[in-house]
Amino acid sequence: MSRHRHKLSRKAGMPPGTLHTDGEPRTGPVRITVMDYDAEHVEERKVGAIEECFPYRDTETVTWINIDGLANTEVIEKIGRHFSIHPLILEDLLNTDQRPKMEDLEDYLYLNLKMLMLPEGSREIRVEHVSLIVGKNYLLSFQEDIGDVFDPVRERIRKEGGRVRKSGPDYLAYALIDNIVDNYFVVMEKIEEWVEALEEELVINATRESLQKINRLKKDMLFLRKAVWPLREMILALEREESPLIREDTHIYLRDVYDHAIQVIDTLETFRDMVSGMIDIYLSGLSYRMNEIMKVLTLIATIFIPLTFVAGVYGMNFRYMPELGWEYGYYTIWGIMITIVVIMLAYFRKRQWI
Amino acid sequence: MSRHRHKLSRKAGMPPGTLHTDGEPRTGPVRITVMDYDAEHVEERKVGAIEECFPYRDTETVTWINIDGLANTEVIEKIGRHFSIHPLILEDLLNTDQRPKMEDLEDYLYLNLKMLMLPEGSREIRVEHVSLIVGKNYLLSFQEDIGDVFDPVRERIRKEGGRVRKSGPDYLAYALIDNIVDNYFVVMEKIEEWVEALEEELVINATRESLQKINRLKKDMLFLRKAVWPLREMILALEREESPLIREDTHIYLRDVYDHAIQVIDTLETFRDMVSGMIDIYLSGLSYRMNEIMKVLTLIATIFIPLTFVAGVYGMNFRYMPELGWEYGYYTIWGIMITIVVIMLAYFRKRQWI
Amino acid sequence: MSRHRHKLSRKAGMPPGTLHTDGEPRTGPVRITVMDYDAEHVEERKVGAIEECFPYRDTETVTWINIDGLANTEVIEKIGRHFSIHPLILEDLLNTDQRPKMEDLEDYLYLNLKMLMLPEGSREIRVEHVSLIVGKNYLLSFQEDIGDVFDPVRERIRKEGGRVRKSGPDYLAYALIDNIVDNYFVVMEKIEEWVEALEEELVINATRESLQKINRLKKDMLFLRKAVWPLREMILALEREESPLIREDTHIYLRDVYDHAIQVIDTLETFRDMVSGMIDIYLSGLSYRMNEIMKVLTLIATIFIPLTFVAGVYGMNFRYMPELGWEYGYYTIWGIMITIVVIMLAYFRKRQWI
Amino acid sequence: MSRHRHKLSRKAGMPPGTLHTDGEPRTGPVRITVMDYDAEHVEERKVGAIEECFPYRDTETVTWINIDGLANTEVIEKIGRHFSIHPLILEDLLNTDQRPKMEDLEDYLYLNLKMLMLPEGSREIRVEHVSLIVGKNYLLSFQEDIGDVFDPVRERIRKEGGRVRKSGPDYLAYALIDNIVDNYFVVMEKIEEWVEALEEELVINATRESLQKINRLKKDMLFLRKAVWPLREMILALEREESPLIREDTHIYLRDVYDHAIQVIDTLETFRDMVSGMIDIYLSGLSYRMNEIMKVLTLIATIFIPLTFVAGVYGMNFRYMPELGWEYGYYTIWGIMITIVVIMLAYFRKRQWI
Amino acid sequence: MSRHRHKLSRKAGMPPGTLHTDGEPRTGPVRITVMDYDAEHVEERKVGAIEECFPYRDTETVTWINIDGLANTEVIEKIGRHFSIHPLILEDLLNTDQRPKMEDLEDYLYLNLKMLMLPEGSREIRVEHVSLIVGKNYLLSFQEDIGDVFDPVRERIRKEGGRVRKSGPDYLAYALIDNIVDNYFVVMEKIEEWVEALEEELVINATRESLQKINRLKKDMLFLRKAVWPLREMILALEREESPLIREDTHIYLRDVYDHAIQVIDTLETFRDMVSGMIDIYLSGLSYRMNEIMKVLTLIATIFIPLTFVAGVYGMNFRYMPELGWEYGYYTIWGIMITIVVIMLAYFRKRQWI
Repeated sequence: MSRHRHKLSRKAGMPPGTLHTDGEPRTGPVRITVMDYDAEHVEERKVGAIEECFPYRDTETVTWINIDGLANTEVIEKIGRHFSIHPLILEDLLNTDQRPKMEDLEDYLYLNLKMLMLPEGSREIRVEHVSLIVGKNYLLSFQEDIGDVFDPVRERIRKEGGRVRKSGPDYLAYALIDNIVDNYFVVMEKIEEWVEALEEELVINATRESLQKINRLKKDMLFLRKAVWPLREMILALEREESPLIREDTHIYLRDVYDHAIQVIDTLETFRDMVSGMIDIYLSGLSYRMNEIMKVLTLIATIFIPLTFVAGVYGMNFRYMPELGWEYGYYTIWGIMITIVVIMLAYFRKRQWI
Repeated sequence: MSRHRHKLSRKAGMPPGTLHTDGEPRTGPVRITVMDYDAEHVEERKVGAIEECFPYRDTETVTWINIDGLANTEVIEKIGRHFSIHPLILEDLLNTDQRPKMEDLEDYLYLNLKMLMLPEGSREIRVEHVSLIVGKNYLLSFQEDIGDVFDPVRERIRKEGGRVRKSGPDYLAYALIDNIVDNYFVVMEKIEEWVEALEEELVINATRESLQKINRLKKDMLFLRKAVWPLREMILALEREESPLIREDTHIYLRDVYDHAIQVIDTLETFRDMVSGMIDIYLSGLSYRMNEIMKVLTLIATIFIPLTFVAGVYGMNFRYMPELGWEYGYYTIWGIMITIVVIMLAYFRKRQWI
Repeated sequence: MSRHRHKLSRKAGMPPGTLHTDGEPRTGPVRITVMDYDAEHVEERKVGAIEECFPYRDTETVTWINIDGLANTEVIEKIGRHFSIHPLILEDLLNTDQRPKMEDLEDYLYLNLKMLMLPEGSREIRVEHVSLIVGKNYLLSFQEDIGDVFDPVRERIRKEGGRVRKSGPDYLAYALIDNIVDNYFVVMEKIEEWVEALEEELVINATRESLQKINRLKKDMLFLRKAVWPLREMILALEREESPLIREDTHIYLRDVYDHAIQVIDTLETFRDMVSGMIDIYLSGLSYRMNEIMKVLTLIATIFIPLTFVAGVYGMNFRYMPELGWEYGYYTIWGIMITIVVIMLAYFRKRQWI
Repeated sequence: MSRHRHKLSRKAGMPPGTLHTDGEPRTGPVRITVMDYDAEHVEERKVGAIEECFPYRDTETVTWINIDGLANTEVIEKIGRHFSIHPLILEDLLNTDQRPKMEDLEDYLYLNLKMLMLPEGSREIRVEHVSLIVGKNYLLSFQEDIGDVFDPVRERIRKEGGRVRKSGPDYLAYALIDNIVDNYFVVMEKIEEWVEALEEELVINATRESLQKINRLKKDMLFLRKAVWPLREMILALEREESPLIREDTHIYLRDVYDHAIQVIDTLETFRDMVSGMIDIYLSGLSYRMNEIMKVLTLIATIFIPLTFVAGVYGMNFRYMPELGWEYGYYTIWGIMITIVVIMLAYFRKRQWI
Repeated sequence: MSRHRHKLSRKAGMPPGTLHTDGEPRTGPVRITVMDYDAEHVEERKVGAIEECFPYRDTETVTWINIDGLANTEVIEKIGRHFSIHPLILEDLLNTDQRPKMEDLEDYLYLNLKMLMLPEGSREIRVEHVSLIVGKNYLLSFQEDIGDVFDPVRERIRKEGGRVRKSGPDYLAYALIDNIVDNYFVVMEKIEEWVEALEEELVINATRESLQKINRLKKDMLFLRKAVWPLREMILALEREESPLIREDTHIYLRDVYDHAIQVIDTLETFRDMVSGMIDIYLSGLSYRMNEIMKVLTLIATIFIPLTFVAGVYGMNFRYMPELGWEYGYYTIWGIMITIVVIMLAYFRKRQWI
């Protein structure tokens, strides 16, 4: 997961609100889509230049402008100017390490959170920084990369009669957040699978790699925790917000998504507890196997070492060793040795080693 | 316990308040019972169709409608429409992973909590999601499955003169919650038995399975914790609620059940501490036994290895080995070897190994 | 300590305020004593039937009715009726698992806490559930069993001129709580002795039993903690109480006993930290001893195994082994073997194993 | 450190405010010194009888009466009566286990804290219970034993023109507390030395004693923690106190000493973290050394055991063993054995054991 | 890092506000620079004597006086007198162990924090104590040593038209703090590198030094934590400050730097978790390797010890041992021994040891 992290220090020494570190605005690839709707109509466009979106700002209908790709700072700057967004907010938009937060700037609310995705068949959780700017009758959403989890929302906007069509950008913001949080459950479920697979592996056949898997899972948890804990506060702040931008009847929906966020956190903490107990299981598994190995060694060694000694005694070349001349000396010795073995085995059985 | 958990991700992408994921309302089995009572009369019915309950809503008497089985979303929806319940609340009803909470929607209060049951002879704690909707003169209760712990309450309703008959749905809600919490103590006692049995096992004869038992107990604790901690907040919220739906003299009863919830949490935390200490006992047991095994190996090896060496020396075939020709050489060697053994044993005794 | 715990689940399914589970009031042994006093007079009686106490209720003097033994629910019920005590409070009186709390019911205050006693020569701490009901001019105290720590208070009541004689039931309640908390220090001191004895044992000669002792001490701590932590809140609630039942000048005394409760908690937490570190000492002791054993084994084995090999070589029966025919072959071999031993010992000394 | 602790249970059963447990006031050794000063004059006396101090109470000048030695309860009682100090405060004065606290009794403030001293060359930290009573124009200080850290304050009082001479008893109290807290840093520095010495010992040559040292340091931390944490609250309470006894411009000084107390706590917590990590280092050191020992044993054993077997084979006395008759049989066997050794060593090198 | 720490106890016994412990003001090296600017002009000077700066105090333009080097207490005192700074603040300026805090003294705000620097190629993080005094139209900054991270701010002041030129000393203070916090990210990134390198080392080839590296990293974290946690509170206090010295529109900038501080803390806590898990990985690595070693020993020993015994038996010199005379005795014995080996290997394979 850490490979998605950007250079933290990128910006040291820059004045606040700097969007491009090298003085030149960057013009990376970007995809802009607009949905403009009210109860009666809906219009959906993919625009080439950001300027095409600007007329929508002043209409009464709800406008959702979605920007995929943060590499093009030129576009971000233009939007910032047109929608009079504070330079620090623009900086937060681009800072993909920014922790989830909500900021009320009177004319608009700024929200950001992490979108988690699990690409088909991948072991890596993809983390994407998503920012929402909720204005009076527009919503701007900024995503790190192309590809998101918002298709169900788009579908609901397209269908006539849904709640989203009758509501404002605050409800749209809720719908997007709700979709992101619902996707957390998908990720949680995957993690649950991993945790359970790993637990089974530990019990049945722990290897050197198991430890690394535990460690990786632990780090995944740490990073998810950083994404999810502040989310709770962010949604709570939003729910308690008394801005006119949040309509009265949206609050119950926010409370609902807040409950879901808490549920994600609870689940995550449960997994954390489970994973942190795994190291103990791994270690005790090692100790247990060591015990097994030592038991075998001890059994073999304690049985044969005395026998070898007995054999050694009668391999001595003293001239006067009466036993050597006895007719049944050899058989007697075998008898003694078998007796020793039997006593040993009885002792081990008594101590429950065999 | 985890086998009772439903798919967390079931619902990702659905609009809020969606009760059926496939577009079609489901019509699973459901059992509806109604109790209608006031101080003078009591009526108890098992109804076939949910519509039969609706007339009770407008009577002055207290009506308790109990729905067993959440699989029939059609019934849930009808109730929702008739009692004008918010779609999000209906969704919470059905979301069996919902953590305990209380919500005041002015016309009614929504509560949900977890019912714990211990089926006779089972090692599995059964967790059931229970929701209560407390209105002016009705109480709706929704349970995941048929079978509950409410029979004592029903009995008290049937008997004339009890407090429940003279009180409103708020007291009935209290009585149901109180019954659920009282059953937690039954579960706690069972867990206490398990914990104590496991502790004894660890001291007397820890095996590889002991570790798995510790782990399972630990996970049980984690899941119980998720059920019980938010319960406390829920009851506290209820007790502090200033809704007219909660009568003045019900508060002392809520405070009482709050005390019980705290007691459950205390007990659970004590168990958690005990279980988390078990891993240490298990590990130190392994170490201790390893020590014992190594001691035996060391005793045998350190006694016989030198003796075998001595025997080996006089098994050499050098032509000129004066000792071999001595008349009492053999007996002298035995004397030397016995001396070695005695010294070794004295040394071991001094170090308290034998 | 756990043997004092009652069945938690005793009461599941009973209506709130039920004192006897089988429908019949129980009439177990009970001992009732009354002290009635004011600044001028003091009267002390042991009464046979609870009814004899009732006249005292309406006098202006302070009346302390002490009930030893909670098995007689008939007596409890009569008192409840006469002093109009809420059924839930009566239930709390009898629930010996009830955690310490304070409840203000306007006409009286209900307090309960745990009395700790250390019977002479016993390893078991005795825990007794004590409830106090503080009314306008009476104080009822309920104890689980006969035998308490209140004799010094009785003595002070008997003596003329003491503060207790000039004060009301609130000061009497303080005096009883103060005595109970002072006795906690006696118990703490005993635990300190146990902790220190165990620490010494661990350092000098840890055995398999040491682990069980650590575990027992840990459990004792857990149970004491459950008794002592809520006590703090209870006393704090009492001190902040603005009921007219608590006179102005009693508050400083309550603050004093609050300080003592904090001191008990501090001491307990210190012990907890000390005990929780003991497992590490125990485990490292095991590891250390294992090291010692392995060192001896390694010393003996690594010295004699090569020697035995050398002896084995010259025990071979090849026809052409020139060394065997040498005149000083045997002595040369001894020389070689002694050299090997010397080198080995020098190596071990260098590695600081001997 | 624990040897400085007094019997906790000394007082169980005594009425509150009892200063002498045996009914008789004790008359142990005590040293009383008085400093009386204002901006213009300063008078310093060592008095024989406490009564000599009383006239100073009613003067306008600041009077600091310092009592060394708490064994003389007669003196304490006389002061208590003369300055009308509450009996519970007198009890707190004498209770050397009392945790730091501040109490406002309108006519005077009561403060107590722990003075830490490091006697020259000692490994033991000396803890002394110090109480301050700050009145309108007097300050009483009570110390457990003779000897303190207040000489610099005395010096500043003697010198004309210092701030202390121009200020009231509140500033004097601050100066004393500040001196005590400054001495905490001296103790912290000593502990830092111990911690660092121990860390080095653990890395270079951990012995059985190291564990005991870790444990002792850990216990020292626990006791210091008990002394220092409540100090913070005490100073904070003092700083926020709105009593007229604390002048306006003393508050900034109290905030300063509060910062220092926080700094002490921070440092202590850092040490705690460092010490708690030491057990792990110690244990991993043991494991590491065990590994080293086992490696040597395994090397020697796995090399020589097969060789000894080979030698044993050709020590057998079968009549028909063709190899024995070969002319170069003996040398061939040596060749085989050397090959085995080379292969073994190559294998060990590959596994990085040698 | 600890080598940067000054003697904590330096000052014990000194009156508050003492800047020089030996009575004589010290006159160490010091470098003073002044920047005086408003929107239209900027003046930058390096001054020889501190008195040259004083005229700037009374101008309307913003004046930033930066003092590098705290060794010269004479200079500090002069500034203190001229700008009427409280002696305790001067003391805090010099106390390089002072934890970050904000103090509002009406005429000016006092802030201090830690500047972290990573000298090129060094493994040591350099910590420098920085204090800011923000007055109406001046800002004084005090640094421990020459060399800082403020060059980008200086650059921005020199350039016309920047925000800093149009704002007051509060914005300048923000800019300095922001620069310091941005540099924390540089340090965090370095630590991340160290952590990742160490993790890899632990997995691939843990040595005795690895443990020391873990320990050093852990201590670095402890010290960083002490620097960073109070920073958060300091910035929060500043942001909530209602002093007229902080203009309205600076608050959003302070909130931004507050977010960054939280982000640093989050990152640090993540690293702490990762490092604290490393000890477990190290220990389990040791255990794992021990297992490997023991397996090899056990394999070799259990295979050859029985074989050696068999060889020993036929090395005995009994006169009557029929096997010795058999023609194929020798080959039979080889057959038996090979069978033993095969059985052993099969057993080991079954147990998954080879």
